[in-house]
Formats: sequence, structure tokens, C-alpha cells
Amino acid sequence: MSEQLLLSSIRGVLARLEETIIFQLIERAQFLRNPVIYQPGAFGDILAGESLVDFHLKEIEKVHARIRRYTSPDEHPFFLDLPEPILPPLAYSENPLRPNTVNINPRLRIVYEEEVVPTICRPGDDRQYGSSSLCDVISLQAISKRVHYGKFVAESKFQVAPEELSSLCRRGDKTGLQAAITEPEVEQAVLDRVGLKARTYCRELSGEGGDPKIEPARVVEIYRDWIIPLNKDVQVAYLLETRG
Amino acid sequence: MSEQLLLSSIRGVLARLEETIIFQLIERAQFLRNPVIYQPGAFGDILAGESLVDFHLKEIEKVHARIRRYTSPDEHPFFLDLPEPILPPLAYSENPLRPNTVNINPRLRIVYEEEVVPTICRPGDDRQYGSSSLCDVISLQAISKRVHYGKFVAESKFQVAPEELSSLCRRGDKTGLQAAITEPEVEQAVLDRVGLKARTYCRELSGEGGDPKIEPARVVEIYRDWIIPLNKDVQVAYLLETRG
Repeated sequence: MSEQLLLSSIRGVLARLEETIIFQLIERAQFLRNPVIYQPGAFGDILAGESLVDFHLKEIEKVHARIRRYTSPDEHPFFLDLPEPILPPLAYSENPLRPNTVNINPRLRIVYEEEVVPTICRPGDDRQYGSSSLCDVISLQAISKRVHYGKFVAESKFQVAPEELSSLCRRGDKTGLQAAITEPEVEQAVLDRVGLKARTYCRELSGEGGDPKIEPARVVEIYRDWIIPLNKDVQVAYLLETRG
Repeated sequence: MSEQLLLSSIRGVLARLEETIIFQLIERAQFLRNPVIYQPGAFGDILAGESLVDFHLKEIEKVHARIRRYTSPDEHPFFLDLPEPILPPLAYSENPLRPNTVNINPRLRIVYEEEVVPTICRPGDDRQYGSSSLCDVISLQAISKRVHYGKFVAESKFQVAPEELSSLCRRGDKTGLQAAITEPEVEQAVLDRVGLKARTYCRELSGEGGDPKIEPARVVEIYRDWIIPLNKDVQVAYLLETRG
């Protein structure tokens, strides 16, 4: 099996992303919800009718596209009309994935704005639009990578149990696939670890004089209700498309 | 005293930056030094003769300038010819700093490329130019904020001991100022905490199968030899310019 599909390699990547996601969610929670940054046109003509977060995310993706971020099999852009890379392509000779078009970022954007931000941030507007948007962009990029890593997880699971998964894929049995890829004890271990890290960071970051702006339990909820389910949806979509 | 000058508020900000800096240095250490990304012109005309990191950092700063990052008193750009903000200015009514022009980012760039990267990364070229450059940009921005926070620290110290510091400033006594702002026990506490966090992250991130790519002691060295001294240089420069 390719080194990239070894569970130990995958877990290493997911652990790195976990630090970034937890930390950025706690950072975002410093600021109020600031709903105006998600409203298209709220800042008038200067953003050509886009929302501030749309504008910011797209501009950052344009820069990253030029340094070939989205040529990597584990990176997925939120926008489609991005410039070509200015660096010559890297040969991903070891890409263990089958060619596929799975990209759930449009859904992730909606989930992030409508579910994640209201869960972690108190309501209101503190005018910290740039700082809030900066946290959002980093969080969205990290969560996107985390949920799309489901492709590597799914490929790894397929190679361990090709007959069982092939048969479910050919029948288009989504419910059966969901059940086959679900490992409740692994999910619980992730939630326990996320809770531990969130409690540690919240304590450290609130410092001596500060008061924590977020309950660590909110971060665990985001993982339980959104990040883990979206990751599993990616796994199912990838298997259906590549083995269906 | 303004809330922003309270040691507890300052420490909260510095703790947040510490997480980002330590984590990004460990991330950067995954990749080899890749010296080509710091060489002007190495990628030919497409970057207009700039180095890849120059290009990348400048493009990101252009985006951040437009969402008014550099109008905040605790943010300092690396480049001067940035676009105007598209968001209306925030009134930083509580800015506790005196107007000043201290910006040591040009020196930080040199220190980062010539000292930090060689300390944390093994020599060689692994062609991971985009990923390395991404870590560099995040690290440089976080270290810049960390060292320039010296302005808030210096203002806080000045308000506690105005007579002593005024007299040193008027005489232009750099050595005396360095001695007056130095708190060896605080520095040692920072180094101990950085060491503890670096060991924790290295262990977590190396995971089960992985091997850590960096000795936690290297991260402590970066703080001891570069980040803390640069922060103190900012304190001295700020005091000399505003009270000299």
C-alpha cells in the first residue's frame, strides 16, 4: 500500500489539521458573529457585490493557485475561476487516489456560515471585520482539507476490503456504504482528543487576566455535528464515483 | 492605564502568537530548506525577478491591506507599496502607543531566511516550494507581530517608570535602555513555556508512525537568539523615537 494511505501517515496529517482548526475556531470566538461579513453586497461596489469573506477567500485562493496549491490531490479550492500556477507542475507520482471530481466546499461554506460561526461566536457586531474574516479563511481552508482527506481514508479502507465495498458501490447503496465506513470507536477517540486539546488551548489562551470566550464543548460539537459527518460524506461520494 | 497596556492583556496576545509561531516552525521543518524559494529571479520572469517568498508574501499583504490589516497599531507590513483599504477605517480610539515609525521587518526577513530556516530545516531541496513558502509567510507574519508587540510592552514599562526611562531616552543611552527593559526571569519563563509547548506539539504531531522532523530545542533557540532579542530591539527603538 502507498505510504500516503497508511493509517499512520493519514493520522499525522489529520492531527496537524486538528491543531489549526481548533486554534482558529478559538481565535474566531474572540470576535462577535459579525453577520455583515457574509452578506453579498454589504460593502457596496468596492467588492463587486461579493461578501467580504467571499472576496477575501477568493483573493487568497488566487495567490495560492499561482503557487500551485490546488494541483495537489489533497487540496480543493472554493472557487473555480482561479489563475494558472506560475510554478511548473510537481509530478505527484505517488498520488494514490483515483481520478475524481468530489468537492463539497460549496456545502462547507454554507455549513460554516450558518452553523459553525453561530455555534462558536456570540451574536453581535464588533466591527472586527478584517480579523474575523482572516480567521474564517484559515478555518475554511483547514476544515476543507480535513473533510476532503476522507478521500485518502476511503481509498485506504477500499484497499483493505475491496469486495465488500465494491459490491455496495455497484449497487449505489449509500446507506450501506455509510455503515461500512463508520468506525464509532475511532470517532469517539477523535472527539475525546479534540475536547482535551480545546480545553488545554482555551485555558492557555485565556491567560491570567483574560476570560475564555468559548466553551471547549462547542469545538467538540463542531467536530461531532459537522466535520466528522462531512468527512464521511466525502468518503461515500469518492467511493461511489470511483468504484460505482 | 489602557487595557491594552495591562500585562495580562499583552500576555494573552503573546500566548496566542506563541502557539502559531511554534506550530508553524514545526510545520516548516517537515520540508527541506529549499533555498531556491529565497533567491530573487530563481523562477524567471513570471515573478518579475522577485523570489518566490517575496512574491507570495507581497501578494498576501496586498489582500490583507485591502481588508485594512495594516491600519491596526499592532500590525506591520513587510512591503511599502500596498493598496489602500477597501473597508472604511476603524477608529482605534484606544491606541495607547505614541505615533512612531519603528518597523524592523526588513531585518526580520534576513534573520528568518539566514538564521531561522537553517536552524529548523535540514539542508536540501524537496521541491515542496509552495508548501514551504506558505509556512514561511504565516511564520513571518506571526513573528513580526510578536516582535513589534514590543511597542506595547515598552509603553507599559514607560508608564510604570517614566523618570528612569525618560532620562535614558534623552541621553540616547541604548545600552542603559536595553538593561532597564530586560527582565531575565520573564525571558526564562517564556523559554521554559516555549520548550514545553514545542515538546508537546512535536510528540503529538509526529503521531504513531511518524518521526519528528525537528528537535524541540531548536524552537527554543529561535526564541532565545532571535525572537526575544528582536522584541527588545523594538522596545528600545520605540522608546528612543517617542521619548528621545
